[in-house]
Amino acid sequence: MSSESRERFASISPAEFFKRNPELVGFSNPARALYQSVRETLENSLDATDIHMILPSIKISIDRVEIEKEVYRLTVEDNGIGIPPHIVPNAFGKVLYSSKYTIRQTRGMYGLGVKAVLLYSQMYQDRPFEVQTSPKGSNRVYYFRLKIDISKNEPIIFHRSSIENPTGWHGTIITVYLVGDWLRSKQRIYEYIKRTYILSPYAEFVFRDPEGNVTYYPRVTNKLPKPPEEVKPHPYGVDIELLKYLIATLRYQYDVRGFLINEFQSIGDVTADEILKLAGLPPNKPASKLTDDEIARLVEVMKKYEKFRPPSADALSTLGEELITIGLNKVFSPELVAAETRKPKAYQGHPFIVEAGIAYGGSIQPAEFPTVLRYANKIPLVYDEKSDVIWKVVEEIDWRRYGIEENQFPLVVLVHLCSTKVPYKSAGKESIADVEEIEREIKFAIMSVARQLRLFLLEKRKQEEEKKRMLTYMKYIPELARSLAIFEAPSEDKVDPLAKELEQKLIEIVSRKIGLNDAELYKKLKVEIS
Amino acid sequence: MSSESRERFASISPAEFFKRNPELVGFSNPARALYQSVRETLENSLDATDIHMILPSIKISIDRVEIEKEVYRLTVEDNGIGIPPHIVPNAFGKVLYSSKYTIRQTRGMYGLGVKAVLLYSQMYQDRPFEVQTSPKGSNRVYYFRLKIDISKNEPIIFHRSSIENPTGWHGTIITVYLVGDWLRSKQRIYEYIKRTYILSPYAEFVFRDPEGNVTYYPRVTNKLPKPPEEVKPHPYGVDIELLKYLIATLRYQYDVRGFLINEFQSIGDVTADEILKLAGLPPNKPASKLTDDEIARLVEVMKKYEKFRPPSADALSTLGEELITIGLNKVFSPELVAAETRKPKAYQGHPFIVEAGIAYGGSIQPAEFPTVLRYANKIPLVYDEKSDVIWKVVEEIDWRRYGIEENQFPLVVLVHLCSTKVPYKSAGKESIADVEEIEREIKFAIMSVARQLRLFLLEKRKQEEEKKRMLTYMKYIPELARSLAIFEAPSEDKVDPLAKELEQKLIEIVSRKIGLNDAELYKKLKVEIS
Repeated sequence: MSSESRERFASISPAEFFKRNPELVGFSNPARALYQSVRETLENSLDATDIHMILPSIKISIDRVEIEKEVYRLTVEDNGIGIPPHIVPNAFGKVLYSSKYTIRQTRGMYGLGVKAVLLYSQMYQDRPFEVQTSPKGSNRVYYFRLKIDISKNEPIIFHRSSIENPTGWHGTIITVYLVGDWLRSKQRIYEYIKRTYILSPYAEFVFRDPEGNVTYYPRVTNKLPKPPEEVKPHPYGVDIELLKYLIATLRYQYDVRGFLINEFQSIGDVTADEILKLAGLPPNKPASKLTDDEIARLVEVMKKYEKFRPPSADALSTLGEELITIGLNKVFSPELVAAETRKPKAYQGHPFIVEAGIAYGGSIQPAEFPTVLRYANKIPLVYDEKSDVIWKVVEEIDWRRYGIEENQFPLVVLVHLCSTKVPYKSAGKESIADVEEIEREIKFAIMSVARQLRLFLLEKRKQEEEKKRMLTYMKYIPELARSLAIFEAPSEDKVDPLAKELEQKLIEIVSRKIGLNDAELYKKLKVEIS
Repeated sequence: MSSESRERFASISPAEFFKRNPELVGFSNPARALYQSVRETLENSLDATDIHMILPSIKISIDRVEIEKEVYRLTVEDNGIGIPPHIVPNAFGKVLYSSKYTIRQTRGMYGLGVKAVLLYSQMYQDRPFEVQTSPKGSNRVYYFRLKIDISKNEPIIFHRSSIENPTGWHGTIITVYLVGDWLRSKQRIYEYIKRTYILSPYAEFVFRDPEGNVTYYPRVTNKLPKPPEEVKPHPYGVDIELLKYLIATLRYQYDVRGFLINEFQSIGDVTADEILKLAGLPPNKPASKLTDDEIARLVEVMKKYEKFRPPSADALSTLGEELITIGLNKVFSPELVAAETRKPKAYQGHPFIVEAGIAYGGSIQPAEFPTVLRYANKIPLVYDEKSDVIWKVVEEIDWRRYGIEENQFPLVVLVHLCSTKVPYKSAGKESIADVEEIEREIKFAIMSVARQLRLFLLEKRKQEEEKKRMLTYMKYIPELARSLAIFEAPSEDKVDPLAKELEQKLIEIVSRKIGLNDAELYKKLKVEIS
């Protein structure tokens, strides 16, 4: 046999691919796997609630069910919209089957997360995955036990049943068993939940850890952010293959003009005619009959056409300055909080918005570098901090210009990127790539809140200096009052009362002059002097 | 309609998945895409040669074929083993169909690279991909033009033909058109080729860039490293789903004992019996009849059993100290080169070997930090340097202990990780994750070459000090010689010649004493003194 036959070619299913390369979706070791499992299931629960205008109530528990092998049972329960029973097997048991393949801001981006949890679960222990769900409005609760047939990329259903739902409960409860490492993931899991909570002050969480500790994170507000809407693609984000995909999945028989107007943002009658003219295409040609060459010409024109409105921000859901302020205040009890939500921008046809928040002082301990809270589509990013564009921007800012001394940062910087397409560096969703447009917005957002911090610090310093000046006066006031009293008193026994009276008046004058609340300050200063 | 129906679920093909998320495989923008395309095709060419004991001759050319849209034509030609014609359409036109799905060290890891190039190529221009190939030993050359049907994940063949092959040529020539950005990728592409060349001194490359510059990288040695062999899985790397996969794809009907002995490394008769006893399984049960529970028990026993030999290093192919030395010398012309290849180790059942090399001084300019050359399975890693475990180790080493002053590094540190499974952080293959076992070996390898550097620097400093001492003597020798000559000379006119003679002798004595080549040094010092 000649040497070429030594190359064995084989085809594998997408399930097999991700099972073989779990590190690509964040499952690189048992500790990371436990963390990632909490994260993916919690993100799904949140996507099933707030987007649908439901105030999230989520319960997470982790139990150790086998000591020797470190097998854990992870249960996550939400009060979301539930999953229709005919969808359940594929939604959990088929890789690349998902509700995330639309243009809308969701926490999930790749439709891989929960499937990756199952793939990993099956690798080192053999209990199947369990789902209980009741879609909103359904009068039954459905129960499934399943696994993924990895080579076929299909669900294997071990059990399915349903019972009545007299209480009208809706939501999903999932239970997954997996080999993990609690001790090495504990800190990150707590950090993850805390950071999620900061950015979802309208949610409540209960977390029971394998040591039996129960933590309750109460709802801080009932105000839900505006949910994202599903939108049509923007012409700037189009490519030849996207156009082919849209044409192949059309529900109506459109001519190319109708196709442009109905399937894209920002294209009306006039624009459609202009584009078709530029591309040299007859408007009434059926979209399904376009040749490869015609499609390529159309894409070229659409990408270069300069008169489109920017991509719609309807698909985005920011948190807003008020909720960021609430979250930061609640968790850090700082002296100052500032927040800013920027205007929508776009990169490569994807709309995005950057929000930033800052918390300073109070119970935040000074550190060598600010604490950076990174978020994308409302989920916290905890690993791979230093390869993230947010970290890069925070590092490049000259904080002294904003009144903060180097190596002395009692400072938390929060950045939230919302987009229909977050440019993660890997499918594990841990760090955001350096996209120029995004980097610029992050910088502007941080600079804007940092300016508020500077004003606050200037004011604070001014007050401190005034306090110092006051202190100096205070030292002389009693003596001065007494000297004046000696001159003014009608008799010697009136000197003391008069001195007291004059002293009080002098303090009032001085306080008014430097604009301070005298009574309060007086008390404080008295203590300091004595 | 109730709100749950707002969730639209859909299934997408693996081709569609990677087309929608090109940044996950390294195609995040036109510059990066051009770089990544060069890299993936070049890596395939190398995998088709050296592994099969062919000295690689590879030609790469990039031409700009459209000015306005920046469309480039990339052509890569190798003298490798070629691809059998019945394999060609799927090998290029079907995502997750590959020759990389075996246990053996290859540059490709995911079987995605060239397909990702095609997916990207099709997005913004519509010329198909072209392949010419002649498998080694074939008397015909085959020619194809194709694209990928992304929604079906199947090749679309536009053209296929073949001609006679009278010269016996074998290899593959691919041509792909894509929208790129040469100016922004130029530096990285040159860097990539240079670094590949350092680690493949047995290869020759010709690169023609879009500006018309042609660079020839000549072969430096005819010595090829030992090629990697395909091996069976090691029991430590096993998981339940791998076991199921192996059983499902068995070519013979084995009982479980025969299955263990024939399908794994390091399992002989005795070990097989012990494992089966520990797992409580009858040795003669057909492997295909094992229940899920039995498979789970078997995996558990295999992962815990402590008496296996470590994973075989036959599947690995290092470069070796000699070739690393040749490569570093050739490219950097340094004063010192040191190299070390460590012994095989394993992580999670995957064998690996770390090699390190160091180059110091000479034409290397001092810099604030050493130049770090990262390699994995013979390919250079150019992007995302700071999130790589190799960078981390280099950063943590206290270089002063090895005689180098901080911020003064005329130093190149090369690290090469060989493994059947490189733990990349993403499928773009740019940075290696922090795996404890690997990190430790990298540290040991660098420390070992750094010790050689320390000895060299000590010796160098000793010589410099001797030179200084010599200089001091030299200043006095003429005077001393003259004084002695005045005493010794029989007449005044003999003083000068005698002084010269004595001077020469004194230099000889001093030189001998401090072990230097006097004549040479004398000349040098004369110049320095004057």
